[in-house]
Amino acid sequence: MELPLPDDEVYKKLECYPDLYVPGHSIDCVVLGFRQGQIQVLLLEWRSSDIWGIPGGFIGKEETLEAAARRVLEERTGLGNIFLRQFHTFGGLGRRRVATKKADIDEVYSKMPAKSQAWLNQRFITTGYYALVDAEAAQPRPDYLSSACEWRPVNDLPMTMMDHAKIIQRALDQIRVEIKYLPLGGSLLSEPFTLVELREMYEAILGESLDRGNFQRKMLRLGHLIRTEEKKKSGGAHRAPYLYRFNWPRYRELLDSGIGYL
Amino acid sequence: MELPLPDDEVYKKLECYPDLYVPGHSIDCVVLGFRQGQIQVLLLEWRSSDIWGIPGGFIGKEETLEAAARRVLEERTGLGNIFLRQFHTFGGLGRRRVATKKADIDEVYSKMPAKSQAWLNQRFITTGYYALVDAEAAQPRPDYLSSACEWRPVNDLPMTMMDHAKIIQRALDQIRVEIKYLPLGGSLLSEPFTLVELREMYEAILGESLDRGNFQRKMLRLGHLIRTEEKKKSGGAHRAPYLYRFNWPRYRELLDSGIGYL
Repeated sequence: MELPLPDDEVYKKLECYPDLYVPGHSIDCVVLGFRQGQIQVLLLEWRSSDIWGIPGGFIGKEETLEAAARRVLEERTGLGNIFLRQFHTFGGLGRRRVATKKADIDEVYSKMPAKSQAWLNQRFITTGYYALVDAEAAQPRPDYLSSACEWRPVNDLPMTMMDHAKIIQRALDQIRVEIKYLPLGGSLLSEPFTLVELREMYEAILGESLDRGNFQRKMLRLGHLIRTEEKKKSGGAHRAPYLYRFNWPRYRELLDSGIGYL
Repeated sequence: MELPLPDDEVYKKLECYPDLYVPGHSIDCVVLGFRQGQIQVLLLEWRSSDIWGIPGGFIGKEETLEAAARRVLEERTGLGNIFLRQFHTFGGLGRRRVATKKADIDEVYSKMPAKSQAWLNQRFITTGYYALVDAEAAQPRPDYLSSACEWRPVNDLPMTMMDHAKIIQRALDQIRVEIKYLPLGGSLLSEPFTLVELREMYEAILGESLDRGNFQRKMLRLGHLIRTEEKKKSGGAHRAPYLYRFNWPRYRELLDSGIGYL
């Protein structure tokens, strides 16, 4: 696959990093979508290398962490206006060494001036953000460092660079906890949807099946779903199921207050 | 109050920071306890200045974020073996400028070599950790940068440096969310305790009163409390209430699984 910019353009950009960005701290974005009944994550392929990674980047010297996360995601994938939520900062040692095959990256770095090489090779602590997006509507595209930008099932990841697999896992763990007390699906599902589709999304995230009747009863009791008059057209033998939309004021109320047991 | 070390010792230590620690990233610890019916936070007074702050510090060049947090808390307050939980990384601009009275700090810095001054004055992104501790058992003491180490009610804070009031508030917000799905009190309350004491702790954190009967029913249903045969000795007209302990295996089970509505 052809890279969108010639190499010397890439080097010119990389060489500016030490002047533009704060040292030692990066941003990594875990963008998750619900596609083909699976939770999938948006990955970039590093310059035709067969090594994939989540969209990441650096923090401008006069830029907040949140603004940097939004800019990084947009620059690297083309996805703008995405609500990102900070979930964890990774400050382990040897984060870089987790990479299984970094020859290609080393080759790129080796052609750069010593100052830029040293900057890129320093220890980085990274702050992780995650986003839940409607994967059917999103139109990602690779940036100048990447040869592809694609959705991949979180249960079947290709080789990823550094500690990215761990960062993806941690985002999933966080979302599995949030399911316990927050409504979910507002940004993952296209409206209208059936209760079966809603349940399949929960099951994909939890990695376990849920009792159909119990799930429906508990969901409907929360008051954040509205049954429309439409039914889903189905070619099968089953009765056509009702379609639902979110009751957005109530959905936001539950997001603020949480769904407690107390 | 006398400082524990002469000033040139302090300077000698501060001057080593650029060689010891990663640039631009710090740690701040919000240590919360339940004292006198209130949620209180552990604060350090910066060298007889009347300016208070939470225990914070830097990350060794070969130290993980978690190890740094534990070391910083122990060095600055004497509290070891404390379970710290990362809750948020603060990367706003002008974090330093939030200080309302930093003359004393500036004076200390101004006596240092230019390299150390520049290092301490650079932009810092800080990762916040919180701990819930048994305030009756903890024995904090100030470090060489501080003249006092004291508990203060979170609702009645003295003047704090930088954005520390915001960091404390954010930790409280996080705990108020966690109450929705995790058991609480294991590290805040001394065993045995009464259900009234447990409820008062929840009320102090939530900042609202809870219905007594409803609270007791919901707590007992979780199975993480064991009623002992003892009753609390009371001089009052009321019947002496039963004393409880935690059922630790069940408590840890709820910590892992979360208390969901699903």
